[in-house]
Amino acid sequence: MKCILLGSGGHLPLPERFLTSVAVRLEGDVYLFDAGECAQVALRNAKLAAGRLKVLAVSHMHGDHCLGIPGLLMLRAQDPDPGPITIIGPPGIKKYVSETLYSMNHTPKFEVLYHEWNEQSETAWEDETLGIRWLPLDHRIFCLGYRLEEHPRPGKFNTAAAEKLKVPRGPLRAELQRGGSITLEDGTTVVPSQVLGSPRPGKVFAFTTDTRRCRNLYPLLNKADIAFMEGTFHPDETIEAERSGHMTVSEACRIAGRAGVRRTVIVHLSPRYRSQAELARLSRAALEAGIDAEIGVDSTVYDVTEAV
Amino acid sequence: MKCILLGSGGHLPLPERFLTSVAVRLEGDVYLFDAGECAQVALRNAKLAAGRLKVLAVSHMHGDHCLGIPGLLMLRAQDPDPGPITIIGPPGIKKYVSETLYSMNHTPKFEVLYHEWNEQSETAWEDETLGIRWLPLDHRIFCLGYRLEEHPRPGKFNTAAAEKLKVPRGPLRAELQRGGSITLEDGTTVVPSQVLGSPRPGKVFAFTTDTRRCRNLYPLLNKADIAFMEGTFHPDETIEAERSGHMTVSEACRIAGRAGVRRTVIVHLSPRYRSQAELARLSRAALEAGIDAEIGVDSTVYDVTEAV
Repeated sequence: MKCILLGSGGHLPLPERFLTSVAVRLEGDVYLFDAGECAQVALRNAKLAAGRLKVLAVSHMHGDHCLGIPGLLMLRAQDPDPGPITIIGPPGIKKYVSETLYSMNHTPKFEVLYHEWNEQSETAWEDETLGIRWLPLDHRIFCLGYRLEEHPRPGKFNTAAAEKLKVPRGPLRAELQRGGSITLEDGTTVVPSQVLGSPRPGKVFAFTTDTRRCRNLYPLLNKADIAFMEGTFHPDETIEAERSGHMTVSEACRIAGRAGVRRTVIVHLSPRYRSQAELARLSRAALEAGIDAEIGVDSTVYDVTEAV
Repeated sequence: MKCILLGSGGHLPLPERFLTSVAVRLEGDVYLFDAGECAQVALRNAKLAAGRLKVLAVSHMHGDHCLGIPGLLMLRAQDPDPGPITIIGPPGIKKYVSETLYSMNHTPKFEVLYHEWNEQSETAWEDETLGIRWLPLDHRIFCLGYRLEEHPRPGKFNTAAAEKLKVPRGPLRAELQRGGSITLEDGTTVVPSQVLGSPRPGKVFAFTTDTRRCRNLYPLLNKADIAFMEGTFHPDETIEAERSGHMTVSEACRIAGRAGVRRTVIVHLSPRYRSQAELARLSRAALEAGIDAEIGVDSTVYDVTEAV
């Protein structure tokens, strides 16, 4: 699993910092979280093909999280043969995207599927690679946090054990790796557990913006391998954070610590923090919160494949 | 009059080239022509205050000309005291902008006025400084070209003549400059023509994108001091230009030449031309068309105040 931070800003895109958006790349597919204005430019900067976008998850109906969706779909239309894309998000996202495409006289040449949040299910998306769960956060308007869980991967194939059992190279070994039992030419049955190590747990990614501190953050963040959390303000602006439905860097870090997040990236930085000195101030605030959080920097690639 | 080319690209914004948008700055106000995705970032790059935006003129309802409008309005809301803004453009522009702001839960704190094209009047906008005229072009969908004419400015004040006529410095001279007659203490009447040179003609700016060659281009471009004209393709792609409702660089230059345009800037360049070599090819095509046209480069400032 690779996470690419396309943008780390909040409210308005800046020349040097695009709006918060994270691409998760897994098994050749891209799962994108939020797409504010300029997301298509950030995607190009990251050299990610728009045609690879499989799922676009939207947190809430504010411009800095949505206004880039129509452009992304238009960029995706340039791909030679893009498959369907599914947009998951709050109620209203389908209306906004389809109305905009209609106003812009644009008919996508691929299928755009929508799944809007409802109380019936915590599962936003499920495919052969992963599942995505969503829970409401606490913002000025209805807002969703996301948790992406890779399915457990089969254990490592033990070649020595296979040789000993006389399993020939080729389709029989592949079948064992897929989890199926096989019968050898001499009639012996071999079951997967004889040649596979124990299943490897899938990686967990969380995306929580925009929000105040709230109970639902914990199940979303719990022991995540990596979490992109909003920390819009420096702790000196705690009152403004509260008033505007956001968190300070310190609040985010404390929650990440309690939830046992392995790697925390603070995003959705207020446009007021632009200079290196101001960003260093945010970094210090994260450090003082006692966990090893980092302040998001556009275009950073986080490799979550290795064990932590 | 200063024109700032915020972007020179067509179809999709690129990391190194934003979408075609031109800001005309006159008497402290900004008149903006088209606003595709990332226009607010380009406006910041140009150090133009969004609060100064007085009129936003839209050519047509395609994403690369409109998708930046909502973000521009949101940026404008950051200004301490922005006055009203008027959006002029094709039928449907009001529906698109107001629907999007509604979907994004955004209520502008300033008035957004709309004037959609209708057949009754060729005047799109008129204020104390200038007038803007619009005419339909020939694109795949309904599209408007614009001509901005600065009102004639009063002639230069002839101080020597005023001294000779014994007009004292101060309010009486100001009244003459404004075009009013005055009476001196000795009863003599002085009329403006005695102290003013002949009125100086206002500058003319034209903006014509997206379009095929068409008759309406001529009244829009006629003897313009500066014209931003689409030339999406190299002449080698004449068939594709025709098919997609666009012009080649050569077609645009020939029309500019016939219309007597003083300075022509080719914009709305196809994203296929990205390398310096490809841009040089476009420049050569402009040169070969026999007029002194230039290929647009983002962030260039054109000073149209001086006589040509």
